[in-house]
Amino acid sequence: MWRLHQFPICPFSRKVRLLMGEKGIAYSLQSEFPWELRDEFLYMNPTGRTPVLVHEEKNITLCDSMAICEYLDETVDSAKMINGSAEYRAEIRRLVSWFDEQFYGDVTAPLLHERMRKRLVSRESPNAGVLREAMRLANGHLDYMDYLIDHRNWMAGAKMSLADLAAAAQLSVADYLGGIDWTGHAQTKAWYSMFKSRPSFRPLLSERMKAIAPPAHYDQVDF
Amino acid sequence: MWRLHQFPICPFSRKVRLLMGEKGIAYSLQSEFPWELRDEFLYMNPTGRTPVLVHEEKNITLCDSMAICEYLDETVDSAKMINGSAEYRAEIRRLVSWFDEQFYGDVTAPLLHERMRKRLVSRESPNAGVLREAMRLANGHLDYMDYLIDHRNWMAGAKMSLADLAAAAQLSVADYLGGIDWTGHAQTKAWYSMFKSRPSFRPLLSERMKAIAPPAHYDQVDF
Repeated sequence: MWRLHQFPICPFSRKVRLLMGEKGIAYSLQSEFPWELRDEFLYMNPTGRTPVLVHEEKNITLCDSMAICEYLDETVDSAKMINGSAEYRAEIRRLVSWFDEQFYGDVTAPLLHERMRKRLVSRESPNAGVLREAMRLANGHLDYMDYLIDHRNWMAGAKMSLADLAAAAQLSVADYLGGIDWTGHAQTKAWYSMFKSRPSFRPLLSERMKAIAPPAHYDQVDF
Repeated sequence: MWRLHQFPICPFSRKVRLLMGEKGIAYSLQSEFPWELRDEFLYMNPTGRTPVLVHEEKNITLCDSMAICEYLDETVDSAKMINGSAEYRAEIRRLVSWFDEQFYGDVTAPLLHERMRKRLVSRESPNAGVLREAMRLANGHLDYMDYLIDHRNWMAGAKMSLADLAAAAQLSVADYLGGIDWTGHAQTKAWYSMFKSRPSFRPLLSERMKAIAPPAHYDQVDF
C-alpha cells in the first residue's frame, strides 16, 4: 500500500491526498515535519520537502507533489483529473502552478512561516506586517478565483480537475491559519462550501496541527 | 506559427526553447521584460512571468513553462522528452521541478536579482554576500548533478529528457551571470560541454542580454 509522508497543514500533501481521495486510492499516513531535517527523510527526498509517496512492496518512491499527481493520474484510471484536450490540460496545469507557486508564495508560505514555524520551531511572535500583507494578497487572489468561477463551472473550465484540488489545498491551509477574509467573495465561497462537503475533503478538515487551532468556521460547510 | 514571449536570460523560456529546438518546432521570438509590467502582457498572463507561448492563427495562449512543455510533448510526437514508464516520467518531473524550484530559488533567482535586475531596473550595486551564498549553494547543487551523472547517462536515467533541458536552462543562465565555478565538477562539466554543442542550444548561447556581458568561457564548448 502507498504511504504518504506529510504533515496535516502541508498544502502540497493536501493536493495529493485530495487526488487520492477522489480516485479511491488507499494509503496510510506518516507524519513528517520537514523542519526536523530527519536524515532518513532527506535520503528519500534531497529537497527535504513534503509530500513523499512510498510504495515499499513495489519499491517506488515519488517526490514532488506535481510529479506525484501526474503519476497517479497516469496510472489510475478512475476520476482522471488532468484530462480533456491538450489545451484543457494546459489550462489545468497553468492553474495548478498558479496555486502552487503564486498563491502559495504570496499567501500560504508567509502564513505557515509566521503562524506555524515561528510557533513550533523558533518560538518567536508572528510579524503583524507580514500577516497583513499576506491577507491583502489573498484578497486579490480570491478576486481572481471569483472571476474564474464567474466564467466557468470549475477552476479550469467545465469539469472538475486537479486545478480545483490544488486551489482547495492552498485555500484550506490559509483558512486554517486565519488568513482568509471571505467577505465579498461569494463565488469562491460557494465553490469552496460545495468542495468542503466532498468525501475526499472531510477527513482533512477534521485533522488538527498540534498547538495550532483553526478558526471556528474552518471545518463548517456553512461559514 | 508559435510566438514565444521571453527575454534572453530567462531560464524558464530557455527550457521551452530547448524543447522546441529538440522537437524541431518553428517559432518566433518576442522580447518581454517582466519588470516593465506591460498591460498587454499581464492580460495574457496574470502572473506576469515569462515565458508565454502564443499561436495567433489557432487562438492559443499557453502560460507556465511546465504546462507549455507538457503541451508540446503531448501534441508533437518527435523527440518525446517526458517519455518512458510512469516511474521514469515521475523521475523526469521530479528533477525538472528540482531545477525549476530548488536550483532556481537558491542560485539562478538571486543571481538574476543581483546582476540583472539591480543593474537594469533599480540601478543598485549587487550585494556581495548574496552572490557568495548563491555560488556556495550552486557548488552543492553541482555536487548533486555530478552524483546523478555518475550513476546515469543523463539526468533522469538512460535517455535524454526534459530534466536535461531544465538543467541546461538553469545552469546556462547561472553561468552567464558568472555564478558557476566549474572546478571539481568534471562530470557535470562533461555533460554540459556535450550539451553546449547541440543544435538546439547553439542559438541561445550566441544571444546577449543588453548591458550584461557573460564570462569569456560562457559560449565555448571547451571551457
